[in-house]
Amino acid sequence: MTQYPIAELDAHWRAANYLVAGQIYLMDNPLLTEPLRAEHIKPRLLGHWGTSPGLDLVYTHLNRVIRERGQEALCVWGPGHGGPAVLANSWLEGSYTETYPDIGRDGEGMRKLFRQFSFPGGVPSHVAPETPGSIHEGGELGYSLAHAYGAAFDNPDLLVACVIGDGEAETGPLAASWHSNKFLDPVRDGSVLPILHLNGYKIANPTVLARIPETELDSLLRGYGHEPLYVTGSDPLSVHQAMARAMDRAMDLISEIRREARIGKGDFARRPWPMIVLRTPKGWTGPATVDGDPVEGTWRAHQVPLAGVRENPEHLRMLERWLRSYRPQELFDSEGRPTEQVLACVPPGDLRLGATAHADGGRLLRPLPLPDLDAHAVAVDKHGGSLHEPTRVLGALLTDVMRETEERRDFRVVGPDETASNRLDDLFDVTGKAWQEETEPTDVHLARGGRVMEILSEHTCQGWLEGYLLTGRHGLFSTYEAFAHIVDSMVAQHVKWLRTARALPWRAPIASLNYLLTSHVWRQDHNGFSHQDPGFVDHVLNKSPEVVRAYFPPDANTLLVVADHVLRSRDQVNVIVAGKQPCFDWLTMDEAQTHCARGAGIWDWAGTDDGTGEPDVVLACAGDVPTQEVLAAAALLREHLPSLAVRVVNVVDIARLMPREEHPHGMTDIEYDSLFTADTPVIFAYHGYPWLIHRLAYRRTGHPHLHVRGYKESGTTTTPFDMVVRNDLDRYRLVMDVIDRVPGLAGRAAALRQNMADQRIRHHDWIRAHGTDLPEIVDWSWPY
Amino acid sequence: MTQYPIAELDAHWRAANYLVAGQIYLMDNPLLTEPLRAEHIKPRLLGHWGTSPGLDLVYTHLNRVIRERGQEALCVWGPGHGGPAVLANSWLEGSYTETYPDIGRDGEGMRKLFRQFSFPGGVPSHVAPETPGSIHEGGELGYSLAHAYGAAFDNPDLLVACVIGDGEAETGPLAASWHSNKFLDPVRDGSVLPILHLNGYKIANPTVLARIPETELDSLLRGYGHEPLYVTGSDPLSVHQAMARAMDRAMDLISEIRREARIGKGDFARRPWPMIVLRTPKGWTGPATVDGDPVEGTWRAHQVPLAGVRENPEHLRMLERWLRSYRPQELFDSEGRPTEQVLACVPPGDLRLGATAHADGGRLLRPLPLPDLDAHAVAVDKHGGSLHEPTRVLGALLTDVMRETEERRDFRVVGPDETASNRLDDLFDVTGKAWQEETEPTDVHLARGGRVMEILSEHTCQGWLEGYLLTGRHGLFSTYEAFAHIVDSMVAQHVKWLRTARALPWRAPIASLNYLLTSHVWRQDHNGFSHQDPGFVDHVLNKSPEVVRAYFPPDANTLLVVADHVLRSRDQVNVIVAGKQPCFDWLTMDEAQTHCARGAGIWDWAGTDDGTGEPDVVLACAGDVPTQEVLAAAALLREHLPSLAVRVVNVVDIARLMPREEHPHGMTDIEYDSLFTADTPVIFAYHGYPWLIHRLAYRRTGHPHLHVRGYKESGTTTTPFDMVVRNDLDRYRLVMDVIDRVPGLAGRAAALRQNMADQRIRHHDWIRAHGTDLPEIVDWSWPY
Repeated sequence: MTQYPIAELDAHWRAANYLVAGQIYLMDNPLLTEPLRAEHIKPRLLGHWGTSPGLDLVYTHLNRVIRERGQEALCVWGPGHGGPAVLANSWLEGSYTETYPDIGRDGEGMRKLFRQFSFPGGVPSHVAPETPGSIHEGGELGYSLAHAYGAAFDNPDLLVACVIGDGEAETGPLAASWHSNKFLDPVRDGSVLPILHLNGYKIANPTVLARIPETELDSLLRGYGHEPLYVTGSDPLSVHQAMARAMDRAMDLISEIRREARIGKGDFARRPWPMIVLRTPKGWTGPATVDGDPVEGTWRAHQVPLAGVRENPEHLRMLERWLRSYRPQELFDSEGRPTEQVLACVPPGDLRLGATAHADGGRLLRPLPLPDLDAHAVAVDKHGGSLHEPTRVLGALLTDVMRETEERRDFRVVGPDETASNRLDDLFDVTGKAWQEETEPTDVHLARGGRVMEILSEHTCQGWLEGYLLTGRHGLFSTYEAFAHIVDSMVAQHVKWLRTARALPWRAPIASLNYLLTSHVWRQDHNGFSHQDPGFVDHVLNKSPEVVRAYFPPDANTLLVVADHVLRSRDQVNVIVAGKQPCFDWLTMDEAQTHCARGAGIWDWAGTDDGTGEPDVVLACAGDVPTQEVLAAAALLREHLPSLAVRVVNVVDIARLMPREEHPHGMTDIEYDSLFTADTPVIFAYHGYPWLIHRLAYRRTGHPHLHVRGYKESGTTTTPFDMVVRNDLDRYRLVMDVIDRVPGLAGRAAALRQNMADQRIRHHDWIRAHGTDLPEIVDWSWPY
Repeated sequence: MTQYPIAELDAHWRAANYLVAGQIYLMDNPLLTEPLRAEHIKPRLLGHWGTSPGLDLVYTHLNRVIRERGQEALCVWGPGHGGPAVLANSWLEGSYTETYPDIGRDGEGMRKLFRQFSFPGGVPSHVAPETPGSIHEGGELGYSLAHAYGAAFDNPDLLVACVIGDGEAETGPLAASWHSNKFLDPVRDGSVLPILHLNGYKIANPTVLARIPETELDSLLRGYGHEPLYVTGSDPLSVHQAMARAMDRAMDLISEIRREARIGKGDFARRPWPMIVLRTPKGWTGPATVDGDPVEGTWRAHQVPLAGVRENPEHLRMLERWLRSYRPQELFDSEGRPTEQVLACVPPGDLRLGATAHADGGRLLRPLPLPDLDAHAVAVDKHGGSLHEPTRVLGALLTDVMRETEERRDFRVVGPDETASNRLDDLFDVTGKAWQEETEPTDVHLARGGRVMEILSEHTCQGWLEGYLLTGRHGLFSTYEAFAHIVDSMVAQHVKWLRTARALPWRAPIASLNYLLTSHVWRQDHNGFSHQDPGFVDHVLNKSPEVVRAYFPPDANTLLVVADHVLRSRDQVNVIVAGKQPCFDWLTMDEAQTHCARGAGIWDWAGTDDGTGEPDVVLACAGDVPTQEVLAAAALLREHLPSLAVRVVNVVDIARLMPREEHPHGMTDIEYDSLFTADTPVIFAYHGYPWLIHRLAYRRTGHPHLHVRGYKESGTTTTPFDMVVRNDLDRYRLVMDVIDRVPGLAGRAAALRQNMADQRIRHHDWIRAHGTDLPEIVDWSWPY
């Protein structure tokens, strides 16, 4: 068996471990040039020691194979709470100092590196956007492996290593993402090397995968489609040997799989990809016991093993012994610079993990080739005179983008099994759905190199897309509106990442994360109540305003304009809510462009407001179904109360309702009042939960006059019109709202009000008798 | 090999399949007593055929073993969108008619059963609360297996079968929940029999588990800790034989595992539990091809295989052929009643899956034995004169409950690895953490029969607890506030379930789903920005108001009162946000009880409002950290502006802010104004996103005078006081807000305002220099 010269690797590893412990504990005396005293110790001891020595080992051994093979690589650090480990290694390799020149690679730099860690005004305790080489925070666990695959897609020369902690491995998103290898094309994609780090413990418990019998673990990992290579031990020298061997074996296997696939013509079976199982003690090389309790190799090593260092002289002595056990004087010269031996394994230039452009994807990003919108516009001779499925119209545009990126391969569409159902199936004219398993004659559109990605896991879809975007590519996530909540927590983390990244001058902007939420709350004809939840927008709009946007295009042409806009945008999370069912075409492409540029505007053709003064009432709408009902209500008012000055306002970009000071898209009060007035009743038909509109507009002068209709959790398997009636969003209810709210109208329009109430009953009875909506609803279109 | 007499099973299965197709298609002519005509067909064809024949097969064969063995059983139908299958079977066994007497078990009942399905005013298309025998909706996929385990815990005689669709199996939550068997005690818990139904396809794609090589699948399932039993085929007769054999084998293995465990003294190793892999065609026995495309056995069978039946005579003929292929005249007598042969396999009475009390858990629920609160109250001689960790005080109360339920075993605490970290570790005095794997000498508190459940998967925790509650038991979920978002979508589904169940007279109320969100946004000292998200409450409060509640107890005694209240409540989702860090004790137990009963109240001891008139300003607070800052601000105002009439209002039950018409806990306007006034400036320091308060209170007369401070996504790894300063929630900022907003105060208090601004800078500088908060913050307490 090959014996590796490991002195250099061990020196690098010890140096990294030393730097981790230093970051957790030391304010001063970084090189231990004098005996350790209480005043050298930070007053608040924060950070996660337990996972760090394992991360240091992985970084060290990745360095070796990257350097030896000239292998372009990126690493995703699942246990990102082990932030000091990644910081330590990037400081050692020099990428940290290149990114932050005031933290030199010398003793003074080391002092600053230590002090700033988890210190107010310093750097966070986790791997973060601030960390060179990172695309993954690793605080909320579960997404490392999906991020790694996202980074590997369409990067055929890239190795993406991914450390998965055994805590993280218990999460659902991680468990699902093992199957990503069924979607990775060995010809056109890079490779992912999972490194399952079994250090045995979470915060207070053993982990499942570390304790199940080894045969079960082996069976599980083979069941995931991997060939596991085991590295086990606590003796550093033998672990170094085993790790070096496993790394080389893994790299060789990857090369073999790629070669075999790439010389063929796609006629090969998926082979198990290698992975490494690294079983080393938690808090390895740290204090074995503290105050009589075992620490190294137990859950007690999770955060700060010695907690009383400033107050307890015995703890202080133990810390000094621990730090000196790495023999820092052999690792750093008298100026505090890492020695040649320590740096021997470090790869050159951009091959360093902290320097790769793949972790700062904006550096690699190219604008998408977007088609002329006019080529995709639907012709609109008359407002509401025709019907289109908006997402189908969008599908044609996306197909153009997919076609134009065939060579570049930097655009993907992800979703949980709904691309065709969401009417985006034109895409299959130019690409397939990624799939590496056997196919059957009845299958359609499956292809090894397909750039539509479908797996019934919203978590995996989101993780893939995040990884893809963070490494400098483009994409779209199309999914059920209700089930976007499944990734609530993931999108919150991505917004936090983008917010922080935007403030870092060295991080180049990346493509936005774009959602198309379709199969929305109003059209769950097949599925009913469980599939009705328009609250994802509420969740997203709680987050950093510089990052988040939400759009409600009311028809096909506005959807095209919005899609074009978001695909050009950077560093944002854009939510588009648009139906897949036939929808009236309200605006020409020219009108749509003007309207979307404003984000909200008066549709004067739909109202009876003559523009010379204040209207009697404003009918506002956001969303395709509410827009239809508002226009139908406006038509009823025009017919029955022709003297009433009705203004129709449509809102595409919902953040426009917020004050300018609260959101970059927010309107000034003058702009807001010019649309909604300061004192006229506003009946606002909104796609989602009605109070969102109040939360956005509460500061407006006219807010006391704002009355919002929307979804209020009333639903089941029923007809589309019954859904709007149940939630008081229907045209008749809106007319009744106008009559109730316009001063002086109640008496004058009592008969009309009764008529409207009767209509609601008539529809209700018809629907329950026939199971369908009345033809007059289905066939309705703007009659003027 | 045993040959089973299967004519009766096949008759039952055919009858169920017939009833499924009937529900999807027929308005009339249910028994095909006349040739099928277009007018017999529903105008909207809705429902999911694809999965249903498989569900029918499982129901049929479960019936057999339940009946033969007298086995108490419950089934969780993961593919709950196959609702017509479960409805069909419960109609056959009679439990449907017992629950809904107007749907008789005869021809007229069958006609109604068909017509009501997915029909406006009828029943939903999925398994739902309305479905007898159901605890699981199965619309949003991923939670079936965790629900099944939750149902099995502490039900030692129960068999919980769980059908897992191969689509669902791709989700993260499902993938994680396979490992639940590491937490199931064969002595004290029931057993779970997973039935993985590989029908091969999702909506438009093959599924991963159906297409990976069989060796990989087998390896995966063994890796999950199961012994898979395979049932494969499309010939009904041979599948019946294989399924009967597999069922018996599974039941025998389960009995063996239980017996072995129960005769021992806990000294046994976990053994692989049996599971069944059922590989049958999607849309089995439906049309083989439609319009030239293959349908049976493909993704095209997912919903309605023949879509044009009303318009297309050929489709109508195919439907009739399909329906008659089940030979309904053999299955139902001339009155439309199922024949004896069909019903031969049906178990008696409450053993029927549609009749088990476990699926209507409220029938089994007993009130929790809750201790006297005074026994746990912390002594408060002086407001804010002492500190306690509120969750530790709660932990002692929970420990009493755990002790008192030791025999009953109907209370569990779940959480992702944080019970001790959240200061609930007194629990380990009376129970352990459930764990079936090997233990090491350094492990603590692990026990086979432990009723604390820790796995690093919020999804699994939530699924277990939901299953446990739905089957009539009690529990608490303690977790990181930020990561509660991981289960956003699950809690939304549970609220929908409860909302619907509350309206069903036959469903008895169940214990509420109670969250303790701790490790909250303001105290992420170790973890920083990624762990800061107070938005779970926003998400929950968007849902049905009759179900949702959110509480912000400001100290230990109020937390006790709130916890006592929620543990007594029924059919609700209660969110409690309370810190685990030392917190001032503001209220005595008597005061806490009065205050919590009101939900919000004036703390007159903290203000300078003499009660004779309107205050000059209201300082309101909700949450432990905001309460501390408001009280500190009130003390500053008392010291520096003693003539200013300051009223301090604390809100525990945040829904009190909503209008009475919008939430059952909402205040009337008179109540609201009596606390907050109609025209005085209110400075509201809130725990979470500030706009939530506006969204709740926007209708109040005094709303224009309401100014809210809260978390606005500004955070990192820093000190607690730096966190409140960053988010403008600190005492100095609050005093500045008062000065800015009370009319006429700006001039008089300019020096104080400057002083406050200077204090903020002084603290900022100290924190950045020393890494800690100034002692005057840490030691502060209410000085009057």
